Amino acid sequence: MPDIGKMLWPKSVAVVGASSDVHGLRGRILEIILSHPFGGKVYPVSRSTTEVQGLKAYASVEELPEPVDLAILIIPAQYTPAELERCGRAGIKSAVILSSGFAEEGETGTRMQDEIAVIARRYDMAVSGPNTEGFANIPASFCPTFSPAMDKNAGPIKPARALGKGQVSVISQSGGLGFAFFDRARPRNLTFRHIVTTGNEAALEVFDFVDYMLDEGKTDAFLLLLEDVKDRATFERVAGRALRASKPLIVGKLGQSDAGSRAVRSHTGALAGAPADYRAMFERYGVIESREPGEMVDIAAAFLAFGARLPAGKRVGICTSSGGGGAWLADACVAAGLDVPELDGETRAAIDPHLPSYGTSQNPVDVTAQAVHALGYAPFARLLAGSPAADGVIVVVTGRHPRLLLRDREALTQLARESAKPVLMWSYTRPAEACVALMSEAGLPLFTSMVNCARAMRAMADYRCARERFMRG
Amino acid sequence: MPDIGKMLWPKSVAVVGASSDVHGLRGRILEIILSHPFGGKVYPVSRSTTEVQGLKAYASVEELPEPVDLAILIIPAQYTPAELERCGRAGIKSAVILSSGFAEEGETGTRMQDEIAVIARRYDMAVSGPNTEGFANIPASFCPTFSPAMDKNAGPIKPARALGKGQVSVISQSGGLGFAFFDRARPRNLTFRHIVTTGNEAALEVFDFVDYMLDEGKTDAFLLLLEDVKDRATFERVAGRALRASKPLIVGKLGQSDAGSRAVRSHTGALAGAPADYRAMFERYGVIESREPGEMVDIAAAFLAFGARLPAGKRVGICTSSGGGGAWLADACVAAGLDVPELDGETRAAIDPHLPSYGTSQNPVDVTAQAVHALGYAPFARLLAGSPAADGVIVVVTGRHPRLLLRDREALTQLARESAKPVLMWSYTRPAEACVALMSEAGLPLFTSMVNCARAMRAMADYRCARERFMRG
Repeated sequence: MPDIGKMLWPKSVAVVGASSDVHGLRGRILEIILSHPFGGKVYPVSRSTTEVQGLKAYASVEELPEPVDLAILIIPAQYTPAELERCGRAGIKSAVILSSGFAEEGETGTRMQDEIAVIARRYDMAVSGPNTEGFANIPASFCPTFSPAMDKNAGPIKPARALGKGQVSVISQSGGLGFAFFDRARPRNLTFRHIVTTGNEAALEVFDFVDYMLDEGKTDAFLLLLEDVKDRATFERVAGRALRASKPLIVGKLGQSDAGSRAVRSHTGALAGAPADYRAMFERYGVIESREPGEMVDIAAAFLAFGARLPAGKRVGICTSSGGGGAWLADACVAAGLDVPELDGETRAAIDPHLPSYGTSQNPVDVTAQAVHALGYAPFARLLAGSPAADGVIVVVTGRHPRLLLRDREALTQLARESAKPVLMWSYTRPAEACVALMSEAGLPLFTSMVNCARAMRAMADYRCARERFMRG
Repeated sequence: MPDIGKMLWPKSVAVVGASSDVHGLRGRILEIILSHPFGGKVYPVSRSTTEVQGLKAYASVEELPEPVDLAILIIPAQYTPAELERCGRAGIKSAVILSSGFAEEGETGTRMQDEIAVIARRYDMAVSGPNTEGFANIPASFCPTFSPAMDKNAGPIKPARALGKGQVSVISQSGGLGFAFFDRARPRNLTFRHIVTTGNEAALEVFDFVDYMLDEGKTDAFLLLLEDVKDRATFERVAGRALRASKPLIVGKLGQSDAGSRAVRSHTGALAGAPADYRAMFERYGVIESREPGEMVDIAAAFLAFGARLPAGKRVGICTSSGGGGAWLADACVAAGLDVPELDGETRAAIDPHLPSYGTSQNPVDVTAQAVHALGYAPFARLLAGSPAADGVIVVVTGRHPRLLLRDREALTQLARESAKPVLMWSYTRPAEACVALMSEAGLPLFTSMVNCARAMRAMADYRCARERFMRG
């Protein structure tokens, strides 16, 4: 197996085809790499000039002062196999091929793509692509991609106030969508580790990267976007490893419809396969399937915060300051396959003294705005989390103004730290940025989508169940 | 029928129970009313003081200098019936009762609520509540509510750059959720007309307000949140009127599960009813049901822009700059019950010359980032909208940077104006504010949720179909 570490954590990099024209992709990628504080060496390789974006350029990978760890190829398709061969001869151990024009374009392209696979094997090179948008290693501040999401003007790549201590990695066959996950999750304060886009997967495929990241041991939840599964045996081995390690694979599978599968075929040349086959395979390995990017990010947030404290069953305790919000969420929970049972007498007896006459402790627990103003959300959520009738808790809040939550900050932080069961928050109003930041720091995932919040709880319960079944063998 | 116009468009208002303590609800409501440029007169009524928030206070509604159009009651439940009686005697023709402690609290409360209904009938008063969060009339800048969403610091109540010329009204039994719709829709640049929360509905119910707004003729889409339907005959009459007028009712129905219906009962004393009964009733009148507040707002946005140009069928043409995004959206469309057929030869022949070799015109039309950079999105969307194989168009864009879209502004505006079919936009990346504003001004609804975008198209197709069936009788 080639060393993916050379690719994702290189000490030195050649950008083959780099240009000074930052309006083109060949200039953009170098510009983006240089705009982040990457600690390694960067060598532009160009046949047409001796300087690129202020750096000395080399005419060929063979003329570099050292055999770099990673070659990034962004040159026309027809020159790519020969260039990769040169990289191999020069002792370069990994390459990312961003050029398109391979299997997605027909027979000639498919032949060139096969050549790439052969060369990769010959030199035991870790090769990603072709037809990718590159990748980003967030802790290394290394972003060899032309994705606008990694532009320095797009904002910091590490959140100032992270939700929990865990990290998410994205591995996506689709380039645009891969980086879109990162971009969408920014306002959620999730910490990302790797974003890898794999394109046509001539050599390395999505699950090879998952495998590497499981070795690394630093990714706590995976967001995967698949057009196909190249090799069933690899999938089964890696998905099994992930499930044993309790690192959820949250998967969007493209091409589940005829039209989608037609599109996949033309996009990366992949054969999407029969949906039913995938479903059975995914279920066995506790893979969490989703049809919506926003939902995938929401599920990842829930796992980052409470992945080590998954619900033992499907019973949810709901606590709400909005009576209507509680009722609607209860419907959403039931629609997501969860139960919202009436609470036990002991828990109700502990809650009741704090409620005004128009509140109720039945479940949903309508604590009313009045009681929340007096005591905050935390004491009620804590009582619910302690109930033998609930496997997890959802708190309906209004994140409109940070005032109430600010006052509650310590109690919320303590709740997040000490609760043995997951506690998710849904804001029925549009939450202020300060509220999102505060909840992240407290360690509580804050959802704006009610349905996603319910589905995240369900996904956690299902995952625990699938894992226990798998471990029993 | 009492005159709801007196309530929603009053020239003079009494706030009974008003206080100078803006930390309490009785002070908040007056503060919010006064913070907006409402043109009518406002009279605080207080038994305990002669001045409230700088205004002369009156000891009773009987001592006001004129019989006001609207009395807002925010006093303890037990004093409410007598106060309403005094309002009636004083010739006041409408009242909003914000106080809680009625049917949601048991028998005594139910009796008081019944008294309210009797008094309303006796004086032919338009009475909303009890247990409401008030309402807001956006064009009149009149916001008699304590909802934080209407706080002057929450931002302007009219969008600077509106999507289309149409207006949305919200009528919700739940107060918090009612105003949350408005708040969530703010970043979407939708123009709101009325936000009415009806609470326990002792007298007026949701469909009475819909009826009034249909007379007004200025609401183009309704967002309704129902815990129950009080009177089936009223529903059928009003829903029929709405359908004939092509004013969609986008409805969230609370209490569809046992737990949700338990919560509804304790919230406003409503009996949620059997889900199957509602479904049949809703279907007949083209009511658009949804289980998610964000989706309801998204559907309203689609109708505001293209309500007069609904798709004649379920066939969608997709045009995308991201191959993966197009494939995933095609799956989402099919999951939403839409078709994504291959395009006709003529349309393909018109598109093909503009595509690089790795693009495709099959549908999804993968125009590729390269062609979008050269020509923008508009010409491709226009070709798709002209295809006899598509009833509507969805364009997959990246709204990350406004640069491309800015250049395309005029063409997009022209497309929105001239297209005979709906054109919806989905941004697979998180869109920049400037892009959202630009799309709104152009008249194209921009979605961040892929699934909601597909569902909005489906809702439009279903609505047209239901309306045609209904009109045929």
